[in-house]
Amino acid sequence: MTNQILALAGGVGGAKLSLGLYKILSPNQLTIVVNTGDDEEFHGLNVSPDLDTIMYTLAGIYDNTNGWGLQNETFNTLKMLKTYGVDTWFNLGDKDLATHIERTRLIRSGWTLSQVTRQLCKRLGVHPVVVPMSDNSVRTIAKTNKGNLTFQEYFVKYQCKPIIKGLEFKGAKQAKISPGFIEGLTKANAIIFCPSNPLLSLAPILSLTGVRKLLENFNGLRLAVSPIVAGKAIKGPAAKIFAELGMKVSCVEVANFLKDICDILVIDNSDAHLAGEINAIGIKAVVTNTIMNSDEDKKQLAKYLLALLDNGGMD
Amino acid sequence: MTNQILALAGGVGGAKLSLGLYKILSPNQLTIVVNTGDDEEFHGLNVSPDLDTIMYTLAGIYDNTNGWGLQNETFNTLKMLKTYGVDTWFNLGDKDLATHIERTRLIRSGWTLSQVTRQLCKRLGVHPVVVPMSDNSVRTIAKTNKGNLTFQEYFVKYQCKPIIKGLEFKGAKQAKISPGFIEGLTKANAIIFCPSNPLLSLAPILSLTGVRKLLENFNGLRLAVSPIVAGKAIKGPAAKIFAELGMKVSCVEVANFLKDICDILVIDNSDAHLAGEINAIGIKAVVTNTIMNSDEDKKQLAKYLLALLDNGGMD
Repeated sequence: MTNQILALAGGVGGAKLSLGLYKILSPNQLTIVVNTGDDEEFHGLNVSPDLDTIMYTLAGIYDNTNGWGLQNETFNTLKMLKTYGVDTWFNLGDKDLATHIERTRLIRSGWTLSQVTRQLCKRLGVHPVVVPMSDNSVRTIAKTNKGNLTFQEYFVKYQCKPIIKGLEFKGAKQAKISPGFIEGLTKANAIIFCPSNPLLSLAPILSLTGVRKLLENFNGLRLAVSPIVAGKAIKGPAAKIFAELGMKVSCVEVANFLKDICDILVIDNSDAHLAGEINAIGIKAVVTNTIMNSDEDKKQLAKYLLALLDNGGMD
Repeated sequence: MTNQILALAGGVGGAKLSLGLYKILSPNQLTIVVNTGDDEEFHGLNVSPDLDTIMYTLAGIYDNTNGWGLQNETFNTLKMLKTYGVDTWFNLGDKDLATHIERTRLIRSGWTLSQVTRQLCKRLGVHPVVVPMSDNSVRTIAKTNKGNLTFQEYFVKYQCKPIIKGLEFKGAKQAKISPGFIEGLTKANAIIFCPSNPLLSLAPILSLTGVRKLLENFNGLRLAVSPIVAGKAIKGPAAKIFAELGMKVSCVEVANFLKDICDILVIDNSDAHLAGEINAIGIKAVVTNTIMNSDEDKKQLAKYLLALLDNGGMD
């Protein structure tokens, strides 16, 4: 019986499957390890966009219509900051700012990002363990034709338009895996790679010293859901970046990316014809509907994955 | 001709007369030195209530109806902070928070409070020099029957209910007078003590090492407007505190408080009978209407004071 899941997640794609898992598992059966390579300081405040996307989604307060931030937001602080001549290209709502103000205050008073995350989640009624991949600073740097950009500069300020020539995860070598990540890994009997951008969301997690080895030696099934479907990314710039880095825009490349650390790759019905290529890499391809629009879709996919894990990967 | 004014001010009373002076003088004729004993850190942010009251008032965005904060405020950040379990007894609006976020960011990056204040004022179109009394931390501590309280705890959290047994201005001995204060004093040919609470707003300024001596030796007229009218304070707890500290609630005590550093005390018509007592202290009492309700009142009083200074104190 698969009853302890460690999920690895980035932002939106990760949040969708995390919500599905959250809705069908008990809180103590789920640990969600979240990418912090996208973290950045704005206006002197520590912002952790992926952690917040997961936390807000599980709390039921994420703005799914906008695709970012909180429901029923106002932007009065930001407007006033603009009056003060501050560059406000990164949209931060008034309620959202409370998260960053409280996180920053706690971190400045000596808390780790893990402790802060646990506290904020608790207050929002989010009870599974949501942990940053590390309590140390790791910053995703996009090396582009417009120069080196932080993730948020690339993603938000330049709207993914620059051409990516390479990615660097600054600080990853020195950063320690967070205690919650280690604990989740120790008690898990299955790992799920959420359908997050492999290069921008999963790669920072995998770049931490020791993580690949721990995943290689993991004693249980490791399953991934491809965020690339029918040669396109469900959301975000994954397809564009794959192409810019000379990779095929295909779930086969997702399998290549996860070689040695993944047993099962769940691909969409529309990619069924690529199963053979994936199997040849040494990862078992399993075909189902992976598109999650409604909350019901998220639950259905989560249920399917758990059943798959229970059956040792046989669908 | 009195053409260079240095005004000493606290919060609301100080802001009223400052606005009057601002409206009739050119910006380069006025320096306003503001009490920072009320400053406090909230949610990890540096809040300077008196500086902000003056700045917002001169910018025309202060909420005169409420008597604090900005017009058309929302409180969504604070509500969310409350969700996070944060104690939110000090009301901070969303727009107001932008001031504190930007101030904190600049101070953390090495700016002085004077530099920050100048920058924020400039962005809000406030052009006279508004300066903190010091760039170092001075904190007004109220010693009360409920223990030692910071000014904001006393004033906002406990609504001035505790009985004050004494006041301390923590850090005042070590704090240096701000450069703008010195500069304003050097070029001024008159000083105006605004009708701010003597014990809570003016005393912190006077407690800085060297200030009393500089005011004693000032080469020009020094004029004050009494905030105590007809045995009552116009606003705030001045009367209550005077009584608790065994002082008479009278403009005569204001004169006693300013002995040796003030030449003229402007008192309200209703206190005309006390002029003799004030003159006996060595301060010339001048009687007029000192109540400022409308902006016109503020301008009228400011005009009256400047004429008085021009006439060498003869009304």
